[in-house]
Amino acid sequence: MSTKTIANWTSSLTYSSLSPSIVQSTIQSFYNWTGCTVGGSSHPATTIARNALTPFFGAPTSTLFDSHKHQKTDAQHAALLNGIASHVHDYDDTHLETIIHPTGPVAAALLGITETLQRPVSGKEFITALVAGIEVECKCGLAVWPSHYDVGWHITSTTGSIGAAVAVSKLLGLSPDQIAHAIGIAATQVTGLREMFGSHTKSFHPGRAAQNGLMAAILASDGYTSSLEALEAKRGWVNVVSDDDKLQNLVASLGKEGAWEIEKNSFKPFPCGIVIHPVIDGCVQLHEVLGGSGKRYEDITDVQLTVHPLVLELTGKTKPRDGLEAKFSVYHGAAIGLLLDKATPAQYEDAVVTDTEVISLRDKIHATADEKCRPDECHIVVNFASAGGTSASIEKHVDHAIGSVHCPMSDSQLTEKFMDQCVPVLGLERTQKASEWCWILDRHGDVREIKEFF
Amino acid sequence: MSTKTIANWTSSLTYSSLSPSIVQSTIQSFYNWTGCTVGGSSHPATTIARNALTPFFGAPTSTLFDSHKHQKTDAQHAALLNGIASHVHDYDDTHLETIIHPTGPVAAALLGITETLQRPVSGKEFITALVAGIEVECKCGLAVWPSHYDVGWHITSTTGSIGAAVAVSKLLGLSPDQIAHAIGIAATQVTGLREMFGSHTKSFHPGRAAQNGLMAAILASDGYTSSLEALEAKRGWVNVVSDDDKLQNLVASLGKEGAWEIEKNSFKPFPCGIVIHPVIDGCVQLHEVLGGSGKRYEDITDVQLTVHPLVLELTGKTKPRDGLEAKFSVYHGAAIGLLLDKATPAQYEDAVVTDTEVISLRDKIHATADEKCRPDECHIVVNFASAGGTSASIEKHVDHAIGSVHCPMSDSQLTEKFMDQCVPVLGLERTQKASEWCWILDRHGDVREIKEFF
Repeated sequence: MSTKTIANWTSSLTYSSLSPSIVQSTIQSFYNWTGCTVGGSSHPATTIARNALTPFFGAPTSTLFDSHKHQKTDAQHAALLNGIASHVHDYDDTHLETIIHPTGPVAAALLGITETLQRPVSGKEFITALVAGIEVECKCGLAVWPSHYDVGWHITSTTGSIGAAVAVSKLLGLSPDQIAHAIGIAATQVTGLREMFGSHTKSFHPGRAAQNGLMAAILASDGYTSSLEALEAKRGWVNVVSDDDKLQNLVASLGKEGAWEIEKNSFKPFPCGIVIHPVIDGCVQLHEVLGGSGKRYEDITDVQLTVHPLVLELTGKTKPRDGLEAKFSVYHGAAIGLLLDKATPAQYEDAVVTDTEVISLRDKIHATADEKCRPDECHIVVNFASAGGTSASIEKHVDHAIGSVHCPMSDSQLTEKFMDQCVPVLGLERTQKASEWCWILDRHGDVREIKEFF
Repeated sequence: MSTKTIANWTSSLTYSSLSPSIVQSTIQSFYNWTGCTVGGSSHPATTIARNALTPFFGAPTSTLFDSHKHQKTDAQHAALLNGIASHVHDYDDTHLETIIHPTGPVAAALLGITETLQRPVSGKEFITALVAGIEVECKCGLAVWPSHYDVGWHITSTTGSIGAAVAVSKLLGLSPDQIAHAIGIAATQVTGLREMFGSHTKSFHPGRAAQNGLMAAILASDGYTSSLEALEAKRGWVNVVSDDDKLQNLVASLGKEGAWEIEKNSFKPFPCGIVIHPVIDGCVQLHEVLGGSGKRYEDITDVQLTVHPLVLELTGKTKPRDGLEAKFSVYHGAAIGLLLDKATPAQYEDAVVTDTEVISLRDKIHATADEKCRPDECHIVVNFASAGGTSASIEKHVDHAIGSVHCPMSDSQLTEKFMDQCVPVLGLERTQKASEWCWILDRHGDVREIKEFF
């Protein structure tokens, strides 16, 4: 009965049952998503898809966050393209227990459909639908974690389709049975193989998941049927895509105090796989130490990283060839932190990844996996050749990386990240207005106003 | 290298390398698909989707086989809706070794994009692209069979996305690298859980697969990247969706004499799961025997079916509630064969499934699985109450069901099936013209003419 239970919970969720902390986490998630979407709007993964698909665009109802031009397309293509843009820099939010980037598929679908409605959609209504989708998405992810991810599924999009369907269903006011059918139509579209990591298709995944869920809810709203036990049946989603089965207990925890997944959502200070963040955090700190020490980069003989085993499994590319591959290279992350003092999308441009100075330092970096090292922890030793024959070194231990649950980004850091991504696209004045508008999402009478700000 | 090998093979395939038998099998497959698409165009699974998605339609370039009106939509929605229509009566073609219905996803995508092109597409070019897609689709299916199907994937759509991508890539003249990327973008969209069987979503699967593959090829044609080892990589398609791995040998057999999958394609005389066909074939034959014997239906005490084990696993619904569920009921199939002498979409209308006379006979039917019984074989015993206290029975053994490879439907039977499906939608005159046009597909200078006939 898990699918039906989710549908009933979704149908009965009200804004008044959301605590201020839940509302704030949801707004932060939407705010961060919006900035990432604008920031990713000019990446080739987004622009190639937009140009290739333009001949198929329907009536322009829904905003594309991609220019100064208030460009619009139909809700399905808006969901796809905004979903792609939001993930392409690997800069979006992370539900740490599952490595799901939860907001992308859900917000892209929800915003796409919101703008098609012939009625106002209040901020409170929008938040309620958004958090419903994210909660279900993350519970489904937890239900199949870790076997689902281990075998090779990109869990953000495989669960994102379901989350998007739930959010759109909620906004459209579907009945519990219709919501269950929507979940089924979404669940049957299992999109996202990890093999695609490092290519444009990685960011296609959350975009397509947004479309999958949006279409599912639209079809179900007109009476399209699927299964009412789509998730839990013998040949349903959970059993087909994983060896785990924790769905029933997780579904029972929906909406319970202390069990809201949105409150565990985190935001990235760096645009790459979250497992590299401790290393980048430490290397950025070491950049200043190096500068103060009078030591020279050319005297570095080697850099030794001690990291959680997942770091090497997920981001072990020693010789990334471009910006997308560099996101899966702990070596590139360490090199730009040490050398350039920061890691924003600019340090993941192809030209930086192929810069000889970056490569020279990168090739001196070695990483060792240590089971005892937590995922948000790392140890870094930089060794130098010494003129007198004795070696020297400097070290840094990162206990909890910035952006982790123990060391979250503040609202002002999130604003700085938003500005950094949006100003080049929207200009300063529009970015400031957009930022202000997004931070008070809960107070708006009509979210469709968003088209004025992007 | 399997993905690259497929891409190279696809790119270099020419019409002149296709034997007359391959061409004829491809034309039959397209002919049968077209009739099924027209026949399924007014089913709720098609009409609900069409109505729900109309607000999102793009520029009308591509034919919807759904009315007397030459209705058109954009290629993506045409691919979806024609794909749904073609499968909704479970009347489409079957590649028996994998139970893939190969033409649906591939033809729906290919026809959708064909009509958007600003140049003529000859019948020979169309056939070459269609057969390329079907070959790759079926080889991929064989590579993951049986574990992929057993665990719960609807193999028609999971492989259909890939086949559709290959066919559209071929028509668009993509380079081998682009084709490999298209395969990757398609492979990452794994659509179709068997849990959805019996609902509208079953036919959504091949429709969505057509869209998946179409979008994949369109994106790849503009330079969108995925993986060049999407199928064979450690976390690629084959390993994620199955426990089998026979891909390399199967790919090596592409285009080899005697290894063309299209020549193993078969066509259904009855609109339901192919495993029920021997039973329906036998029951239709028994209908005449019963009529000649003077025995009465009300005197039947029970009907004993001996069938291949898959029959009960796939079609064991004892009390189907509507037409879609009845397709998964060997009991309904036997009842309509015995009572109504035929099994066309008309005998799968909801009103027939809930008819008291049909139900009364259906409830007397029992089925026993026998490992020794081949999939295209069955044995049927009809037992009667006897006035004199002694029982009587009539029997029928079906060695190879009609529609099986040993007993294929003839072209004139395929024409009859086409007429039966199309005349109610298109009228007699248009149906005859459409039938003639489809049978000489290889001779046309421009397949885009198809809009004149449907």
